[in-house]
This record gives sequence, C-alpha cells and structure tokens, in this order.
Amino acid sequence: MERVDKLTANGYKILQDTDGFCFGMDAVLLSRFAKVSAGETVLDLCTGTGVVPLLLAAHTQGAHFTGLEIQERVADMAGRSVALNGVEDRVSIVCGDLKEAAKHFPKASFDVVTCNPPYMSPQGGLVNPSDGKAISRHEIKCTLADVIEAAKQMMKSGGRFYMVHRPRRLPEIFALCAENGLHIRTLRTVQPRIGEPANMVLIEAIRGGNAQCNIAPTCVIYEGRDASGKDIYTDEIRRYFEE
Amino acid sequence: MERVDKLTANGYKILQDTDGFCFGMDAVLLSRFAKVSAGETVLDLCTGTGVVPLLLAAHTQGAHFTGLEIQERVADMAGRSVALNGVEDRVSIVCGDLKEAAKHFPKASFDVVTCNPPYMSPQGGLVNPSDGKAISRHEIKCTLADVIEAAKQMMKSGGRFYMVHRPRRLPEIFALCAENGLHIRTLRTVQPRIGEPANMVLIEAIRGGNAQCNIAPTCVIYEGRDASGKDIYTDEIRRYFEE
Repeated sequence: MERVDKLTANGYKILQDTDGFCFGMDAVLLSRFAKVSAGETVLDLCTGTGVVPLLLAAHTQGAHFTGLEIQERVADMAGRSVALNGVEDRVSIVCGDLKEAAKHFPKASFDVVTCNPPYMSPQGGLVNPSDGKAISRHEIKCTLADVIEAAKQMMKSGGRFYMVHRPRRLPEIFALCAENGLHIRTLRTVQPRIGEPANMVLIEAIRGGNAQCNIAPTCVIYEGRDASGKDIYTDEIRRYFEE
Repeated sequence: MERVDKLTANGYKILQDTDGFCFGMDAVLLSRFAKVSAGETVLDLCTGTGVVPLLLAAHTQGAHFTGLEIQERVADMAGRSVALNGVEDRVSIVCGDLKEAAKHFPKASFDVVTCNPPYMSPQGGLVNPSDGKAISRHEIKCTLADVIEAAKQMMKSGGRFYMVHRPRRLPEIFALCAENGLHIRTLRTVQPRIGEPANMVLIEAIRGGNAQCNIAPTCVIYEGRDASGKDIYTDEIRRYFEE
C-alpha cells in the first residue's frame, strides 16, 4: 500500500510502499555527506523512491538532480513524489539499468554521482529475485562493481562520487575505486553510539587527480535515552531532521 | 644523549636518545590493539627502541617477542633496554633489514607481526638519509610495500598483522594487503578528540582465509582540559598508562 510520508522539516513529502523498501538513516546521512555546490548536476544511482535526489533538492543549491531506478513500479512512484513536491524543474526520475547508463545520459556529464546501493551480496541468504524489496537490498540487478563502474562513467573528470555502504564491503570498495581511477578522498564511519562498532561507512571519491585520503570525524547517531527509554539523537542527527 | 624513561606503570623502563626518535602514542595504541594470546610468538618490524615488544611483553601472555631494527645504534640501545628490564628470556632484538627478514627467521614462523613503520614517503620533504630520526620517520630504508611483504612472509597462515599508520596511506594499505593475501579484519580510526578528523589508523589483517572487515569503535585520545588548560586523556587512554 502506498502512503505519503513526511521527508523534511520544510515540507517535502515522499511516497513509499508499506510493503516495499522504505528509506532509512543511510539515505539521510548520504544526502548530508554529499557536497553539492550551486549550479551542479547530480546523478543518483539505485534511487529507489527518489529519497536522495529529493533531499538534495531540499538542502542544496544544486541545479539538477536525476534519479536512475531499474524497477518500473518504484521509478513511477518516485516520479509521482517529484510531482507531489512540485520540483519537476529540478528533479527527474529515469527508469533504466545503471549497467546501461550511457544509453540514457552522455558519459562524463555529471558533477556529482551519489548511490545508496543494495548492501548484500546475492549469495547472502535465500532471496526471491522478483521481490522488489529484495532488489533494493541484494545485489540482484547490479553488483558493487557495476555501481562503481557506472559512477566512473557518468562523472566528469574531477567529479565527486558519494556512497554509503557496510563496513564489511570496505576492502572491495577500495579495490574497485582504485581499478576505476576513483581516489577515495574522505572516509567517514558511522556508529550507532559512542564505543560501538561502525555499522555504516560514507565514501567520497574523486575521479582522476591525486586526492589524499582523509578520515572525517566519526558520525554518532544516538547519545543516550530519554525517560521512557527511547533513543535520543545526537545534535548532528537532530539537525538533519530539523533543518 | 641517552636517557632512561619510564615505560609502564608496573616498572618497565626504556632507553631513548634525546636527539633521536622517541616513542609516541602510536606505539602505545599499537601494543594495546594487537591481540597476543598465551604462548604466541610475535615479530615487530621497524622496532626502533623496542617499545612495542617491551609493551607486549609487559601486557600480554605471549611466549616470545622479536624486534627487528635496521639501524645498528638503535638496535643496540633496544637490546640494552631488554637487559635493563631483565626480560632477555622473552624479548630479542635483531639488527637487520626487513627486506631480508628471511635471512634471520624461518618463513611463516610467527603467530603475530606488528609494525609502527615510518609514515612519510621519501619524497615528502627534504630529508637527510643518514639521519637516524629521519630513518624512523621517512621511508628511506623500507617502503610500505616492503613492510607488508615482509609481514606476509613472516606470518603463519591464519596469523595476524597489526599496523598503525596515517589515514592518507589507507588506500595503499588496502591495495598492498590485498596483493599479499592479507585480509583486513579490523580497521580502527583514532581521533585526538570527539568531532575531529582521525590522525591515525590501526589495522588488523589476517593471512589467508576469508575474514570480513569490521570497523571497531573509534578511539578518542582526549576528552577535555583540566583547570590549567592541560589536555585530559579519555578513560581508555588513561587505562593504557595506568595498567
């Protein structure tokens, strides 16, 4: 069942399927980690419901945001979310396969590429490959290698690639970025709480050049619990939902 | 000028040259990050004054610790520190080149290899290659590739390699570990304070197998300042100096 959810404090909304994949903290963190300057163009791979381009449209001065999604039903819903927010002039949704991105867009044409890809390898558990939620979570329609190759192909020289992923995939991420001439400039780890292992990583990579790798301050999601035992967001995360 | 410095709360001492390279937080963190079980053998590459094997001898139940150091004067001083602490039965210092480690030790003979290598590329600034302190800081006598190859050669299959390094070298570390069949199992970032970028990384890599990569909770060094404006260690770091 489709429902309209609140997306930002300043009034953006998003359509989500209650039986499908709904956006999470990773999409919010990715949209805040990605640096998009005034006038820049952005391609979001594996855009799903369009949450990342919509958040970027709400929070940045970027000129145009394109979301590419392989599942027709999901891409259609994302397109309706764009219309719902009246941002058709700044956000487009394209239904297509990122392995054939060059059929849809000129190569090396985007300043920024973003992606919140499926995290799980297809061999990781029993998966129904026709299940939409499974396609959002598992590498059924595209692998990590496909994502990074598509990003490289679509980015301008000197362009930036932003991705959120799981710590266990970090060795592959470093290897695939190196193979594709993408230099990891920033690694940011995300911990649920202080003193806990990271459960997400944010990556900024530059196409070409000789960027040096930096490790940004760890992002911490929760800083304690309120009187009723409910988790409390840190200031950083609270700001992301309030601004 | 040589002087005797306090090394551990339980009475270990170390000889250091006031004009030479003196151990820092990185050696302390490496010695606490490295897991050494009862009865295991450890090889420390680029051992310098022997600080890492001495700290491991003080804090773990490992059977034997060998430090390999290329500079004769420094290796001699390290050997005298071992005698000063009366631990000649558990710690040995060998003067030699890690690129020729196989001349000194049988291949694949250590359970654990540790290294706090020179951090800076030789091209990084004007360096006097005969200066002992420069040899400890710059890749004059060995490169990062030499270190990781030597570690791989000396480790048993399934053995563990522990290294501390700078964030900017992380892409090379991932690439060289992969080339040498070392699987990064743990990455731990080290920040001076909460909210600051990391200035060190700790790496645990396993020879062979199929270890998954995890990101340990970020290590934070300072948590504030006392009344006189002096930095205060976090509980974790205070424990490392008091236990």
